[in-house]
Amino acid sequence: MASSRIPIHPSTQALHADDPLHLVTDVAPPIHLSTTFRYSDNPDELIPSKDPVGEFNGKNFVYSREFAPNPTRFEAILSSLLNGKAVSYTTGLAALHAALILLNPRRISVGEGYHGSHEVIAVVSRLSGLQKLPLDCPVDALGKGDEYAKKAHSRGAYLIVDSTFAPPGLQDPFLWGADIVMHSGSKYFGGHSDLLCGVLATKNEDWAKRLIEDRLAVGNVMGNLEGWLGVRSLRTLEVRVQRASENCGKLVSWLNYALNVASPAVGSEESIVQAALDKIYHASFQSEPWLVKQMPNGFGPVFSITLRREDFARQLPSKLRFFHHATSLGGVESLIEWRTLSDPTVDQKLLRVSVGLEHWEDLKNDLLQAFKSIVQ
Amino acid sequence: MASSRIPIHPSTQALHADDPLHLVTDVAPPIHLSTTFRYSDNPDELIPSKDPVGEFNGKNFVYSREFAPNPTRFEAILSSLLNGKAVSYTTGLAALHAALILLNPRRISVGEGYHGSHEVIAVVSRLSGLQKLPLDCPVDALGKGDEYAKKAHSRGAYLIVDSTFAPPGLQDPFLWGADIVMHSGSKYFGGHSDLLCGVLATKNEDWAKRLIEDRLAVGNVMGNLEGWLGVRSLRTLEVRVQRASENCGKLVSWLNYALNVASPAVGSEESIVQAALDKIYHASFQSEPWLVKQMPNGFGPVFSITLRREDFARQLPSKLRFFHHATSLGGVESLIEWRTLSDPTVDQKLLRVSVGLEHWEDLKNDLLQAFKSIVQ
Amino acid sequence: MASSRIPIHPSTQALHADDPLHLVTDVAPPIHLSTTFRYSDNPDELIPSKDPVGEFNGKNFVYSREFAPNPTRFEAILSSLLNGKAVSYTTGLAALHAALILLNPRRISVGEGYHGSHEVIAVVSRLSGLQKLPLDCPVDALGKGDEYAKKAHSRGAYLIVDSTFAPPGLQDPFLWGADIVMHSGSKYFGGHSDLLCGVLATKNEDWAKRLIEDRLAVGNVMGNLEGWLGVRSLRTLEVRVQRASENCGKLVSWLNYALNVASPAVGSEESIVQAALDKIYHASFQSEPWLVKQMPNGFGPVFSITLRREDFARQLPSKLRFFHHATSLGGVESLIEWRTLSDPTVDQKLLRVSVGLEHWEDLKNDLLQAFKSIVQ
Amino acid sequence: MASSRIPIHPSTQALHADDPLHLVTDVAPPIHLSTTFRYSDNPDELIPSKDPVGEFNGKNFVYSREFAPNPTRFEAILSSLLNGKAVSYTTGLAALHAALILLNPRRISVGEGYHGSHEVIAVVSRLSGLQKLPLDCPVDALGKGDEYAKKAHSRGAYLIVDSTFAPPGLQDPFLWGADIVMHSGSKYFGGHSDLLCGVLATKNEDWAKRLIEDRLAVGNVMGNLEGWLGVRSLRTLEVRVQRASENCGKLVSWLNYALNVASPAVGSEESIVQAALDKIYHASFQSEPWLVKQMPNGFGPVFSITLRREDFARQLPSKLRFFHHATSLGGVESLIEWRTLSDPTVDQKLLRVSVGLEHWEDLKNDLLQAFKSIVQ
Repeated sequence: MASSRIPIHPSTQALHADDPLHLVTDVAPPIHLSTTFRYSDNPDELIPSKDPVGEFNGKNFVYSREFAPNPTRFEAILSSLLNGKAVSYTTGLAALHAALILLNPRRISVGEGYHGSHEVIAVVSRLSGLQKLPLDCPVDALGKGDEYAKKAHSRGAYLIVDSTFAPPGLQDPFLWGADIVMHSGSKYFGGHSDLLCGVLATKNEDWAKRLIEDRLAVGNVMGNLEGWLGVRSLRTLEVRVQRASENCGKLVSWLNYALNVASPAVGSEESIVQAALDKIYHASFQSEPWLVKQMPNGFGPVFSITLRREDFARQLPSKLRFFHHATSLGGVESLIEWRTLSDPTVDQKLLRVSVGLEHWEDLKNDLLQAFKSIVQ
Repeated sequence: MASSRIPIHPSTQALHADDPLHLVTDVAPPIHLSTTFRYSDNPDELIPSKDPVGEFNGKNFVYSREFAPNPTRFEAILSSLLNGKAVSYTTGLAALHAALILLNPRRISVGEGYHGSHEVIAVVSRLSGLQKLPLDCPVDALGKGDEYAKKAHSRGAYLIVDSTFAPPGLQDPFLWGADIVMHSGSKYFGGHSDLLCGVLATKNEDWAKRLIEDRLAVGNVMGNLEGWLGVRSLRTLEVRVQRASENCGKLVSWLNYALNVASPAVGSEESIVQAALDKIYHASFQSEPWLVKQMPNGFGPVFSITLRREDFARQLPSKLRFFHHATSLGGVESLIEWRTLSDPTVDQKLLRVSVGLEHWEDLKNDLLQAFKSIVQ
Repeated sequence: MASSRIPIHPSTQALHADDPLHLVTDVAPPIHLSTTFRYSDNPDELIPSKDPVGEFNGKNFVYSREFAPNPTRFEAILSSLLNGKAVSYTTGLAALHAALILLNPRRISVGEGYHGSHEVIAVVSRLSGLQKLPLDCPVDALGKGDEYAKKAHSRGAYLIVDSTFAPPGLQDPFLWGADIVMHSGSKYFGGHSDLLCGVLATKNEDWAKRLIEDRLAVGNVMGNLEGWLGVRSLRTLEVRVQRASENCGKLVSWLNYALNVASPAVGSEESIVQAALDKIYHASFQSEPWLVKQMPNGFGPVFSITLRREDFARQLPSKLRFFHHATSLGGVESLIEWRTLSDPTVDQKLLRVSVGLEHWEDLKNDLLQAFKSIVQ
Repeated sequence: MASSRIPIHPSTQALHADDPLHLVTDVAPPIHLSTTFRYSDNPDELIPSKDPVGEFNGKNFVYSREFAPNPTRFEAILSSLLNGKAVSYTTGLAALHAALILLNPRRISVGEGYHGSHEVIAVVSRLSGLQKLPLDCPVDALGKGDEYAKKAHSRGAYLIVDSTFAPPGLQDPFLWGADIVMHSGSKYFGGHSDLLCGVLATKNEDWAKRLIEDRLAVGNVMGNLEGWLGVRSLRTLEVRVQRASENCGKLVSWLNYALNVASPAVGSEESIVQAALDKIYHASFQSEPWLVKQMPNGFGPVFSITLRREDFARQLPSKLRFFHHATSLGGVESLIEWRTLSDPTVDQKLLRVSVGLEHWEDLKNDLLQAFKSIVQ
């Protein structure tokens, strides 16, 4: 196999960044489940390790709590796609937990965001006394976008970005000053709603090593089938995210147009949308120039809507044919969630929509008939 | 869940045609492995079956050699995408075998095509005395394209089309008179080189039932993980096939241009290609109008090349970085095969290429450096 | 690893007969799913094969319809346990089908036995004109046990023994003249009701090779997860079969005692059993000396009972807590089936019981309370 | 299905304690991989949860980081076998970590034991300032066996017992005062060296709930295939552990006899053993009466030996045929480890042996030829 110096596109890396880790001639990698691995048959090669993490070369497996073949391939691909050394975990929150264990901060400034993140922060606070500050905590007026990095670094603090909603291809937080990029890989990386995992990426080699040492101690490694499915899923990451992002763009454009057209004809699509829908939330409607600068290839495939009445929001999912009513996001199948069911803090009229790979016109027609059904 | 009369696009069917088969609330279906299923707890509902195949409703499983949940979902989606009732088998050749057992013909007219097909025909011949005729056997001069159907039907014969290289989205053989459409689902349906399966589709309900009865007797059902992975793979069939087809189109256009440019500059790309390459074979180079009519959305992602020397063909795969040297086709990863290794009847200078989801420019650069390496 | 000449016990072979097939250092083998395998990177090692089946060495995989790593390990272990070369198939009936394709007989003498076997014979008859004869077809009066072998061989015929109900450890049909031993591996080999497979074993090397060549043509290979689970299951074959056989022995002894005790006290266990039960069928009640000679280590863990009334038989399964009401046998969990549900030819008062690994006293108490419940 | 008041044996519980959790009619449970689960189709049943953990009924799944079907079944069986509410984790160390997060102690008294436990304690110490005390820390002279419980409870402290080496059937630490029983389920529960998991069990309902709430926050849930394989493995726990324990007992008795026989004949088995072996360590050689009282059914299947020379210890594994040289324990296959390779603190002449299901005579013969080989 020849080597090459020409920069390789991400879609190619997604298929080949793990090639150097082949253990067998199988084109599709096997699912390795073994917890333990035979040492060398040659007694002269048996050397008690001083630094098991440091001596790992991608193939010399000993015990799967330390390193295992499928998660290792998964990390190799993600290290390429995320532009930093990727370390995998059982779940996204396990990844955030690992970052907190690594940095062991006294204070953390954090926005509302995902309620789960606050729960892991609460557990760490219980042990370490970690204090939570609001995202707009002083240092003077807080800027936008990459200015979080400036603010953090100006005080010797670190910036962790949860980039779950903007997977590789849409945004690279390292370009904007992030120290650690975090992903719930259960979303776009897995992409089929069938695996849990979390990922941290960092350009700091020493941190990466310490993360793995802590993971070995704390034992929160991702499952083996999850690792295998993760690799299988990354093979199609680009085509999945591109298609979902396009579908979402078309859907929110249509919704936005229908919502804002003046004096729609009675019984028209637009009048139905206006009778049901109150507001749409999606990155494409944000006017800040930094956003387009950071996401030049399109926006994420998730949007939210608020309906005109709480009972509309409660009923809408049951009227839909092509959106499963379920929490989570990032899968090939479109999901909708009456969000109050898993986050009691949000507006009870709000629904969150994750757009999948269905044809966008079918999704549009489905939403339309469901709106019609609830407003009648 | 509301119903709808509006025709649904294939990309949506690929995600939802199996929704009526949900057994649990899981968004991603479980992998069902049980060979046997509990009968009703209500003794009054225990009724000895007269017609197990006819009474199957998609959910009343008894024994997995008969019906199993994951293959059943796989068939539901494929029945929608193939426009005929789909029946799944262990492998593509098991599917062909099943078609031969069903029709139990005295004579079969068949082209060279895939050597494996001839091997299953030979087994059936051993038992039943089936005789093989060439594809251009009389009935007067043979026509092109759908004229195979006319020829067959004019004599009361049936037309089986192996459509493996042109999956749904590229071609529908039922539109052109096929009686049975056959697929090695191990290729584009599976799409990740990690499952074997075969599929027959027919619009003849009685045949479909008899195929399942024979399958129950002969026991050549697909594996359960294969069925589950098959469904997972069909979710992305459209984006995979579209991208691979586009990639292949760009690659063969470039090769064709380079091969045919007159008097290329010394050391230029084109001169390297011309030094290594003799011919390219791909549907896009066929001039027959029926082909474009049958494949309006693009051509298959497989092409063949012959090199100028046999040792070039033997060496080329070892010089490539982004094409695994392996048999088969239809996966996310590009493959190349010195074809004589698995089919001794073909030209020893021929290589078959299956284009995957890598960026086409990386594939081009890879081929170019490999050509350069072998001609030096 | 040192070699040894001392004969190795089956329980050890079940754990180590596949050791020479290690491809990686994993102690528990990986699940290999790849359909295709990379050829050598060294062009000089690329040699078009004349005889793919004959050249297989257990590790040089090319395409998984031919050979795949997990089924290959499964066969290696079974070849050791069955004392003949084992070839695996999708299902037990696929195995029987393969034997019929191999031998392509004009006539087959067969008892009633399993109705599925007659269905595959019917399919083959449709193609080849195979004729079915009763098991007691002339040659003069038919003997018992190994005399089937004498009878068959005296006429140049072959003896195929379906040994599914008597797995290795209980009986070895090769000792009694069988030419081919067949197993539905879905039963005791799989042992957890979660995989389908079939197995043929033969001491005839040429037959074994032809079986694999036919399997390659007909494509009825077992699934990969099935192959992996099969190996995992064989590791515990001996302890599972021994325990189930012991449990069954205790259970049928108790039932037999209770059924036959004279004048049981009103309300006693025995009186309840006698009110519900009519007959018990189990190998341990057969008086022929050849049976004990052939099965010195105990009898199979399946027995049948007929109840006094058809509605008792219909109701009994719904009253049981530790027997699932489902078809099949050979799993770790006890099953019972009102047999008419899957075989309309049997007595409608008959129930078939497959004894698993539960404590036999719990099974006894469960049967007793269920008998009590139906007779009240 | 009828209910029963008669106490049920553990072997039966291992097969049926999870029956109430059936979601489908499959006899062998499916592998559930979905991360997310559809809410009710009935809008009236959609009720925002106040207490997701408290409202879980074993079937109302929402998101798999919270509860997932296969780990839930695994926990149901283990709750029965361990006599306390079982909570599962990614690994054994994740379980210990969870116990430390729950109790958040200021000081922990702990023996040398497993080095991994000390690593997770070190991580927690980094955050919370937890201090480590030796196992024989004052309270006056430390007693044996259950006296650890008295000592702990006399000071308001809690006793956590890592019972990995003595799975259910061999010992129940709750009988001797444990507050939390911990297991690396990767060992005997998994039993086939193919899954990682950890388990905590407690009789304190409030602790159990808080453990699950913390697990939801910290996200260290076990993998789904691991959960499924875990259930499959528990079906055979009793027969596996009994056989391994018997095999180990026979093996150490033989070794002990051979080691201690006076003046063995030159070239005899005993003389070879004495030339190689220095000491054997196994629970069966401990003379304390409390040990037999706590383990009435036999001792664990792991023992250690020290050889006469370090190079003997280094070489022995490479001479063995039926013991894989690898770390870990508790699998169906026998393992041996030159223990210094994974724990640098132990005697470099020490080998740890985990006895599996091979025939003990084959293991004995294998050890004997290996001893012979190294001493020559």
